[in-house]
Amino acid sequence: MTKTKVAVVGASGYTGEELVRLLLAHPEVDLVTATSRQLAGKTLAEVFPRFAHHRAATALKFSVSDPRQVAHDASVVFLALPHGLAAEFAKPLLTSGARVLDLSADFRIKDPNVYHEFYGHDHPAPDLLPKSVYGLPEIYRDQIKGAQLVACPGCYPTSILIPLRPLIRRKAIDRKTILVASMSGVSGAGRKVEADYLFPECNESVRPYGVPKHRHLSEIEQELSILAGERITIQFTPHLVPVNRGIISTIYADIASNVVNLDPAVMFSGAYTDEPFIRLLGEARLPDTKNVAGTNFIDIAWKIDKRTNRIVVMSAVDNIVKGASGQAIQCMNLMLGLPETAGLI
Amino acid sequence: MTKTKVAVVGASGYTGEELVRLLLAHPEVDLVTATSRQLAGKTLAEVFPRFAHHRAATALKFSVSDPRQVAHDASVVFLALPHGLAAEFAKPLLTSGARVLDLSADFRIKDPNVYHEFYGHDHPAPDLLPKSVYGLPEIYRDQIKGAQLVACPGCYPTSILIPLRPLIRRKAIDRKTILVASMSGVSGAGRKVEADYLFPECNESVRPYGVPKHRHLSEIEQELSILAGERITIQFTPHLVPVNRGIISTIYADIASNVVNLDPAVMFSGAYTDEPFIRLLGEARLPDTKNVAGTNFIDIAWKIDKRTNRIVVMSAVDNIVKGASGQAIQCMNLMLGLPETAGLI
Amino acid sequence: MTKTKVAVVGASGYTGEELVRLLLAHPEVDLVTATSRQLAGKTLAEVFPRFAHHRAATALKFSVSDPRQVAHDASVVFLALPHGLAAEFAKPLLTSGARVLDLSADFRIKDPNVYHEFYGHDHPAPDLLPKSVYGLPEIYRDQIKGAQLVACPGCYPTSILIPLRPLIRRKAIDRKTILVASMSGVSGAGRKVEADYLFPECNESVRPYGVPKHRHLSEIEQELSILAGERITIQFTPHLVPVNRGIISTIYADIASNVVNLDPAVMFSGAYTDEPFIRLLGEARLPDTKNVAGTNFIDIAWKIDKRTNRIVVMSAVDNIVKGASGQAIQCMNLMLGLPETAGLI
Amino acid sequence: MTKTKVAVVGASGYTGEELVRLLLAHPEVDLVTATSRQLAGKTLAEVFPRFAHHRAATALKFSVSDPRQVAHDASVVFLALPHGLAAEFAKPLLTSGARVLDLSADFRIKDPNVYHEFYGHDHPAPDLLPKSVYGLPEIYRDQIKGAQLVACPGCYPTSILIPLRPLIRRKAIDRKTILVASMSGVSGAGRKVEADYLFPECNESVRPYGVPKHRHLSEIEQELSILAGERITIQFTPHLVPVNRGIISTIYADIASNVVNLDPAVMFSGAYTDEPFIRLLGEARLPDTKNVAGTNFIDIAWKIDKRTNRIVVMSAVDNIVKGASGQAIQCMNLMLGLPETAGLI
Repeated sequence: MTKTKVAVVGASGYTGEELVRLLLAHPEVDLVTATSRQLAGKTLAEVFPRFAHHRAATALKFSVSDPRQVAHDASVVFLALPHGLAAEFAKPLLTSGARVLDLSADFRIKDPNVYHEFYGHDHPAPDLLPKSVYGLPEIYRDQIKGAQLVACPGCYPTSILIPLRPLIRRKAIDRKTILVASMSGVSGAGRKVEADYLFPECNESVRPYGVPKHRHLSEIEQELSILAGERITIQFTPHLVPVNRGIISTIYADIASNVVNLDPAVMFSGAYTDEPFIRLLGEARLPDTKNVAGTNFIDIAWKIDKRTNRIVVMSAVDNIVKGASGQAIQCMNLMLGLPETAGLI
Repeated sequence: MTKTKVAVVGASGYTGEELVRLLLAHPEVDLVTATSRQLAGKTLAEVFPRFAHHRAATALKFSVSDPRQVAHDASVVFLALPHGLAAEFAKPLLTSGARVLDLSADFRIKDPNVYHEFYGHDHPAPDLLPKSVYGLPEIYRDQIKGAQLVACPGCYPTSILIPLRPLIRRKAIDRKTILVASMSGVSGAGRKVEADYLFPECNESVRPYGVPKHRHLSEIEQELSILAGERITIQFTPHLVPVNRGIISTIYADIASNVVNLDPAVMFSGAYTDEPFIRLLGEARLPDTKNVAGTNFIDIAWKIDKRTNRIVVMSAVDNIVKGASGQAIQCMNLMLGLPETAGLI
Repeated sequence: MTKTKVAVVGASGYTGEELVRLLLAHPEVDLVTATSRQLAGKTLAEVFPRFAHHRAATALKFSVSDPRQVAHDASVVFLALPHGLAAEFAKPLLTSGARVLDLSADFRIKDPNVYHEFYGHDHPAPDLLPKSVYGLPEIYRDQIKGAQLVACPGCYPTSILIPLRPLIRRKAIDRKTILVASMSGVSGAGRKVEADYLFPECNESVRPYGVPKHRHLSEIEQELSILAGERITIQFTPHLVPVNRGIISTIYADIASNVVNLDPAVMFSGAYTDEPFIRLLGEARLPDTKNVAGTNFIDIAWKIDKRTNRIVVMSAVDNIVKGASGQAIQCMNLMLGLPETAGLI
Repeated sequence: MTKTKVAVVGASGYTGEELVRLLLAHPEVDLVTATSRQLAGKTLAEVFPRFAHHRAATALKFSVSDPRQVAHDASVVFLALPHGLAAEFAKPLLTSGARVLDLSADFRIKDPNVYHEFYGHDHPAPDLLPKSVYGLPEIYRDQIKGAQLVACPGCYPTSILIPLRPLIRRKAIDRKTILVASMSGVSGAGRKVEADYLFPECNESVRPYGVPKHRHLSEIEQELSILAGERITIQFTPHLVPVNRGIISTIYADIASNVVNLDPAVMFSGAYTDEPFIRLLGEARLPDTKNVAGTNFIDIAWKIDKRTNRIVVMSAVDNIVKGASGQAIQCMNLMLGLPETAGLI
């Protein structure tokens, strides 16, 4: 059987590199294209020595990204480009019939005004927004299967939306009281060559950032509002911590006043028991990024605090796997009718 | 002039070692005693090679802790012992007339029932509780000056109480909505030889713990309630992050409904402008543990989130300096009539 | 086809846990037994949350190690026990007909006197020594295939012997001048609950240890001497560095006086071009532990220093994969006639 | 008494920042100038929040570096500029009569041809080379006192020359067999904004670099040759390890064939017993970077390996204190007739 040919556009950053890692090992697809302006001409093996044993990594050279060529060579294209650029690149790809999984923010926000508010420029392709599906399989599995354009969620949103969904759906919490404190590893900043991300600036450092209005709020609130059927505004504070990979999101909300005897175990199990990438830790254990690093899992735990009548839900994901590249491949598997876990477990 | 003679009882842990570091360099006191059962007979220099250049570290040997001997040799005694043990040790010291700075939790909680609830055993010396002063100079400076027994605050409480004090005092926030997410370096766990704190278990790991009822809640809520003049219950979640030293506390609260145009800059400046160890970052910058590591400073920043009508206050301290040993020495300076910053800047 | 049943004895340490990780994912074997006195009764999933998605990890409980039971349930047994204990345990297993892969030092040293010199006690089963094969496939592939008892090499020896073998065989270097400086991650110390390996003691710390006579010298020199056909003594200094996994060994030797125009590229390619787990970096690149972490690869680079007439060979391995558990599985694959890379790439 | 006015030119990098840290706290000098083209106009406190409590840091703004102005304002000038640039800047300063401590490589190498060989360009001011004194107080104390131009040593050379000096002087070792393996923290690379030094590239990474001919070899071999009175060539391999600060140098040499019963303790004590910044650990303990981090000390230990007839000497320094800025201030103290330890202990 011929394997599906896939391309990674913008393969030089951390999410691009992780896509390459996962696609090289994926049993059902062939990575035929990897683009990067600055790395063009070098083989994957030269740039990423950790993949040097893969024959494909030795054979495949980075190319300059030309949409028509990419669409000619591959039928599935991952875009790991900066926002703005991604939408520009998606247009000709979609016209050419390629299926596109975009890892930037460009197709996540349904409302171009919100996009402008959070990203500071006009949306480059607002007409494409209605076509895009938000690539969170735990919510949009069916729509993803038939989508031509998937907007892969941000890392923080993934770690927050999956735990909150059952609570919102079951009206278990007071929607005005949702507050999230997240801690992310430094790869979340991308392979951005800025002084703030040098080793001596991040090591032995813990710091909040993006307070009070981080860009990911736009998609978190959009998706929570869709789930709730009404406008939801939340508090969200990310912190940078010195690990390579991993996000902990600690989520707080008041238990809704009309809810008695909330049993989160029943609620979470009911919602997620068959999900291949959700591991429910229950009340006995707490999440730890080291248990999900390098994997596509999200670990979820919870505690009810009777003193304050709040529920505390805690999740752990690898920001560049379940929070980005792994989840994109999970979506691709759905789009191609492959087992959802193919190449991911 | 004769220097004051001081002792550290239980000098083998991280707070004990930090007391030794600061006292060896302190211009106005002489460290004459350091006790540790397991290290007895070794010199400070042998155990802590980083102090080997201090003549006192080469000369002074760890001794077995005998309260009468300690009180005979020193007039100021720091207790860096586990809770329970500390109170037992404090009794004879106080009888002998020594001034005692206890870094355990034993004298922090005024109500022995609360102590029992959070620490799981009866208080060993409830009669001493009324004598003790909570060693947070920014709140209890005058009482500390004359105290014979100072209960040095925990690291998390220090990072939370100082930022919240002006907000509580000025009734700027809704007291039912206070929520704190803290991140601490691993030295906060003490030099506890447990598998959970081995390097490979903490490195590349971020994890919540002590959810939902960490022991430090008892003193945080006690002190907030005293400040407010009414019972305050808060939400508090600590997280362990892979740095040696440092705590970030990110504190959220709804702005009180009757407050208009809250100006935190005016409020914090009014409260703290003359404090030698408080650095107000204002709204322009955010705290970072690396800026306070090794120092007795607390850095404080804030943001008002108009979307949610909340204030977010963020603080950074070194958990074993301002959060423990440095603050204890700041108290000692007050007790001895020395400049408050002696040996600390 | 029935899969081969395998057991891990002493599965609570880092090498044991890594064996579990690799065996759970191995397509050709079934992990049927995992023993640990202190963890008996708990499931693998409870103890190692990172494996919780494996059905086998949820089903399998740690048991107390009884050799007869182990040999009854499994035909291949990995021993991840402390030295001394391992040999005791191996005896009844071998009698029962099980095939044994021992990850301790017990069967690595052919000469019981050398064992006594380096390990401080008499060898517990000297009669078994002639049966054991040193489990370095790159040297002993054929013997491993038929072995009943395999002595898996230490992590440092793996990182040193593979690079040195071609140089020794081809008599390219002066055998009296071999000197090795190695740097190891902290998992190399095992899950040893000692103060020296607490996070704050290892983080922001670099330190030599085991100078000048680390235990691994015994097997390194034994194997080099066998390769050379004469007694070889080397200099070896390990250093502890704050990473979880990974060893860099930097190896120096004078180029043999009768060798002209040494071409290491030709030599290394000739020796290792078909090896599935050796990646030759050549002269253009240098090894980095992050490229081998989590894998069974060894990366090898070299430079000739014309100023000093020395060759510098540098290798990188993951100390608990190629340096321990991965290599053990590579040996098992050979013993079972499976593809050598099964479950490892 | 008027304090000496000092300037730091190029104060934005790690050595510049460390000079600022030490000079702000120095009791005998006033930091009056700090230059940086990119930071001009900002206060020290804004750029380095960790110094925000110093009045001088709030008052002093970074300025654009103009040699005449600098020499007018300060009588002692530290140059923390890239090589090449430093020499250009030094010329007018020296003409103006300022005393200059250069932390670049520009004045370390006596032979302009060697400079060209190692630094790839002609020396910008070869006529100044005879004037410069190599700023290693343990060797050149007397010359430093009277110098107008001090070439502060590199970090690796400091960690290597001090331990080797007594061995060379006493002819205790075979000078052809000196080999050094060093491990450095990432601040050693400077605040260089390059992808190689991003946190995720350095964390969980150990790697050799600069093999086989690192630039520091030029000054190490120059100084060893001067000490020996004959040309010495050594082997030197640096490695990058994930700590912020600190170098371990492990130094090997054959014991000279005519030396019997070498007693390193006697030799090192004889040479260094009165040195304020050398701590001899002897044979009982080994160095650890965490014991010297943030300090101007060098810790030295040694072992004689009777199996190989080699001596192994191990040193630890903080690469930006004793290896750069602290040592520069130690030199300044000597130049100004201050106590050598002023501002450093």
